Amino acid sequence: MSRAAGDPNWTDSACPVARALDLVGDRWSLLIVRDAMDDSSSFSDFQRRTGIARNILSDRLRKLVSRGILSRDSGPGRSHPEYALTEKGRDLFPVVLALRQWGERNAFTPGEPHSELVDMQDNPVPNLVPLSASGDPLNSDTTRVVKVAE
Amino acid sequence: MSRAAGDPNWTDSACPVARALDLVGDRWSLLIVRDAMDDSSSFSDFQRRTGIARNILSDRLRKLVSRGILSRDSGPGRSHPEYALTEKGRDLFPVVLALRQWGERNAFTPGEPHSELVDMQDNPVPNLVPLSASGDPLNSDTTRVVKVAE
Repeated sequence: MSRAAGDPNWTDSACPVARALDLVGDRWSLLIVRDAMDDSSSFSDFQRRTGIARNILSDRLRKLVSRGILSRDSGPGRSHPEYALTEKGRDLFPVVLALRQWGERNAFTPGEPHSELVDMQDNPVPNLVPLSASGDPLNSDTTRVVKVAE
Repeated sequence: MSRAAGDPNWTDSACPVARALDLVGDRWSLLIVRDAMDDSSSFSDFQRRTGIARNILSDRLRKLVSRGILSRDSGPGRSHPEYALTEKGRDLFPVVLALRQWGERNAFTPGEPHSELVDMQDNPVPNLVPLSASGDPLNSDTTRVVKVAE
């Protein structure tokens, strides 16, 4: 069974953050999504890139397919299935980018080398900056969560 | 021991996405960060908001403190410790926001109610849009990862 909207097993059903985490909120799933964005498509691509144990990789690929994040093509002429991000999976780009930029700012010592994300002109991708509709920078102090009426 | 930059146990040491996931990439840690952004500060606040088992909550709070995401104040006059986001923790705002917005777009059926993030004027927070330095929208097709030279 895929975990669809309306699934009664959501950790916190009315919260979009919690639903997102129920669907993709584990380290290996997001590393697989990262690699799929960087053109990994086969089991062995993912295995080599992440170093993940084969049984965990199988489990996470199966879940990502059942949740509609990856498609799996095992059509005729293929020696092994090919995985690709669905539209829903491609839409995780801001999530992976935000994680990357937080990691760059907070998980490396100054000058310590790390991979870089660049655009088609080889320019570094600027930081994501949360802005209000009127263009003011936002953070957790200047925003609040409005609950759903019970 | 805290998991600091240079820690030899990184899953993929040169990748900022992977380091970020090593530090905060599990569902419960990010739900705790979400609630800390929404002013939870005590063990019982987190327990009530997430519904997380007490032993898992203890473990995650300890890890988030040791990794520098939360501070823990058990000073005199307090009946129990108070947790607060550090600067590094507050800097996760774009990550939590990106997860929220992905969830809103992909994990709810049309019209299904969910909590909302609003600014101080009660206006909804606009979508985070990755942009190049020249202002063009970016996605995984128009960006690429440049590896560190070996």
